[in-house]
Amino acid sequence: MKEFARKQRDENRIVGLVPTMGALHPGHLSLIKQARQQCSSLVASIFVNPTQFGPSEDFAKYPRALPADSEKLENAGVQCLFLPEAKDIYPPKYSTYVDVEGLSERLEGRSRPGHFRGVSTVVMKLLQIVQPQFAYFGRKDAQQAAIISRMATDLNLDTEIEICPIEREADGLAMSSRNVYLQTGDRQSATVLHRSFQAAQTLLQNGSRDALSLQSAMHRVLKQESRAKVDYVEIVDAETFEPLTHINRKAYVLLAVKFGETRLLDNMLVDFSDTGELNVEL
Amino acid sequence: MKEFARKQRDENRIVGLVPTMGALHPGHLSLIKQARQQCSSLVASIFVNPTQFGPSEDFAKYPRALPADSEKLENAGVQCLFLPEAKDIYPPKYSTYVDVEGLSERLEGRSRPGHFRGVSTVVMKLLQIVQPQFAYFGRKDAQQAAIISRMATDLNLDTEIEICPIEREADGLAMSSRNVYLQTGDRQSATVLHRSFQAAQTLLQNGSRDALSLQSAMHRVLKQESRAKVDYVEIVDAETFEPLTHINRKAYVLLAVKFGETRLLDNMLVDFSDTGELNVEL
Repeated sequence: MKEFARKQRDENRIVGLVPTMGALHPGHLSLIKQARQQCSSLVASIFVNPTQFGPSEDFAKYPRALPADSEKLENAGVQCLFLPEAKDIYPPKYSTYVDVEGLSERLEGRSRPGHFRGVSTVVMKLLQIVQPQFAYFGRKDAQQAAIISRMATDLNLDTEIEICPIEREADGLAMSSRNVYLQTGDRQSATVLHRSFQAAQTLLQNGSRDALSLQSAMHRVLKQESRAKVDYVEIVDAETFEPLTHINRKAYVLLAVKFGETRLLDNMLVDFSDTGELNVEL
Repeated sequence: MKEFARKQRDENRIVGLVPTMGALHPGHLSLIKQARQQCSSLVASIFVNPTQFGPSEDFAKYPRALPADSEKLENAGVQCLFLPEAKDIYPPKYSTYVDVEGLSERLEGRSRPGHFRGVSTVVMKLLQIVQPQFAYFGRKDAQQAAIISRMATDLNLDTEIEICPIEREADGLAMSSRNVYLQTGDRQSATVLHRSFQAAQTLLQNGSRDALSLQSAMHRVLKQESRAKVDYVEIVDAETFEPLTHINRKAYVLLAVKFGETRLLDNMLVDFSDTGELNVEL
């Protein structure tokens, strides 16, 4: 992989990397589409990274679909599929971990101790192996994206981290490899997430900037679905993920909700133009 | 710094980096000498890294000698002196740290909690900024060198880590920027470290491979100097720094000894040729 990437750089190609865990859906393909617009050589990696799964999490049963993934990547214009094995990524005596403090301990980090340490470490390794000019991550995992951006800045990496919009199903459900776990009834109920964001969006558009009011409105919507077990609904600074009480800068409205054994994440990005105009991205 | 280094690489120069904390002595200059033999463009950095000093350690009074250092580097053939400031290495919101687990917790890591985390993090940053083909470290700080080698391997860095021999004063004292702290009486007494290694070397040459016997012999020599307060005398695997009871592979004999407020480190490298022949490097 190093040799291929070095050759691309030597031939003055702009290398882009799309790191994935496979089980590709249109969300991943939208990352590749954006990468194709910026890069002349595209690498996608598929690696279900054991160090980002907790002991009671779904590492073993995480969806794997290599033949179909490989075909999708080729059709999308990816030149190189990097398929490392765990024994090569973490050989015997492996000991080094990258930690993004603070950011990694909040929200998802609290629910999944060690998760982000696994993520930042494996992404660091992929970035060192491929040394891409751009690397692409989905905004659906907003905290992960913020952590990787922070790491790239802090460790003086040459790679630019690009955060791409959320792809959604027709009914608003954010695309995720874990959606396949949803039971039929839960799949239908999960549309409540999108409706809760729409309630918050309406409040924002009506001028509310109070985090608590938005959260309450979202909880009210979520309560209408008895199958939805809310883990958190939070409004945070988009860079530090520190909670906001008043939404006066770039922020994420984030939620994590369980349906049966399946935990879904979704978020809404709130931003303001230089003239103070509100911009909401679902 | 990034631009300079990139230009060197674009012009197909082999870039070498010698990271230092300044207060340069012949030990540092021997690193530069080795670097000059392998590289066509030499960068030295001077940065007294705050994150590797504990709260009660000597960060504020660590020797600083910039004008003299700068002249020494120029005379030694260094093309570029990188002199970052702490506010640029650790800007506001800085949060990312590199941890080499296990290795960082033993010996020096136990005496100086957080020390190696600061070292591996700043070296990671310097390696990302300069992206040298080779980086040079002194074997005097053997555990630091092992940690940096481990990190470079684990994180798939392109930089080769070169560990250079210890430079010694005429009486055997390992050169160190902290030697200037030694009171006159202590400076004389500190030669006991070298004598303790010579005792261990004699045992090895007489066929002993028993770690405990070597350590006992060293302690006996060290006890002859009442000013010497032994912190540890350990014999460890040269890669993992796990203690050895029987010396049957590449190993370090390590010590840390205090004279007044000054803590000195020294070590001896024990290795075996393919035919089993003993090789001891002081």
